[in-house]
Amino acid sequence: MPEPQTSPRLSDATVDLLGVLAYGELTAFERLATDARFAPTIGAQMALAAMAVAEFGHFQALHAHLTGAGIDPEAAMRPFVAPLKRFHDSTPPKSWLESLIKAYVGDGLATDFYREVAAFVPDAPTRELVLSVLADTGQASFAVARVREAVQADPTVAGRLALWARRLVGEALIQAQQVAVERDALTELLVGGSGDLASIGALLGRLTDRHTERMATLGLDP
Amino acid sequence: MPEPQTSPRLSDATVDLLGVLAYGELTAFERLATDARFAPTIGAQMALAAMAVAEFGHFQALHAHLTGAGIDPEAAMRPFVAPLKRFHDSTPPKSWLESLIKAYVGDGLATDFYREVAAFVPDAPTRELVLSVLADTGQASFAVARVREAVQADPTVAGRLALWARRLVGEALIQAQQVAVERDALTELLVGGSGDLASIGALLGRLTDRHTERMATLGLDP
Repeated sequence: MPEPQTSPRLSDATVDLLGVLAYGELTAFERLATDARFAPTIGAQMALAAMAVAEFGHFQALHAHLTGAGIDPEAAMRPFVAPLKRFHDSTPPKSWLESLIKAYVGDGLATDFYREVAAFVPDAPTRELVLSVLADTGQASFAVARVREAVQADPTVAGRLALWARRLVGEALIQAQQVAVERDALTELLVGGSGDLASIGALLGRLTDRHTERMATLGLDP
Repeated sequence: MPEPQTSPRLSDATVDLLGVLAYGELTAFERLATDARFAPTIGAQMALAAMAVAEFGHFQALHAHLTGAGIDPEAAMRPFVAPLKRFHDSTPPKSWLESLIKAYVGDGLATDFYREVAAFVPDAPTRELVLSVLADTGQASFAVARVREAVQADPTVAGRLALWARRLVGEALIQAQQVAVERDALTELLVGGSGDLASIGALLGRLTDRHTERMATLGLDP
């Protein structure tokens, strides 16, 4: 399997970041569009479809940025196809509420992580593009409102949904660790950028804090 | 369940046509996006996602046209949610090739039918919009090329795929008949527009001829 090419303009780590983000957006598009099918109302179905299309717009921007830098986007995405597929195959939502939690809690954690990595990207146009595609497409407030309604209507669902969120975080960490082992340049960017392992600990602390805030917003135990 | 409102500008039959088309585009979006997930390559996955996004653009145009005419788009779509869901639930593709056949043969038949109905729509801007959203988004040539390749590589798949295409047509006719029984105005537009039942027979003949041409293009028996 070919490795992503090294470009004179972008480092290996930057290409890796763009590759995982691009494939992440493409799978987010597919997942939101698929979940739209199970939406309880035509209104919810339209809202999810519109969010999916916004994610595809992000994918196209990342694709164009890679192509413009002389990088083959498919080669850049390829190393991340298997870990993203493993994550989604191991966490299929079994209900409308589970799919909303996955969109809010799962994507929220991923977004926080990518934003931390983006801070260490030396190329300014790439850094700005990454931060712009990480902007919320409206799925956060959409998911929060619907999950809170459901928990208020039937408080017994809260425990089951909190358990689901913990499973999502666990599976995400397993795949992230696998990627860290396989993609040296990306890991080096993060460790080198942070300065030392204590800084990595602080980064993980920040990710955990924000995850806890999201769970509180949903009215769920972390 | 509320019926679509009658607008001073658009007849009941026109609202029905716009409603079924809009919901058809929204489900086409979801189906193409879902099938993208099973694409064998990242390139095929991107191509299907782009086609899905084009269908969503058609959906938005129909939605805006209904809203502009003072019609609630959700109410206009609602009568067609159940028949379209029954069609898709009864014909889940079990492989990449089956999903391509469904996109080409199934959507081709539906498009031919809607184009015949559009000819009888008295409102010119609506007629032009309907014909523009029925334009192919590239899925026809994409599907044809891939199915022909697969049949050439392994001629034994041709019989199985031809059977699948016949099942799609059968299920589509069952649901179309159900809609004809339930939506008087739409049926009246078609029968009144054609003039008599002999003309309806001629219309069915044209649909059959074009279906046979599509099967021949794929290298399959009709």
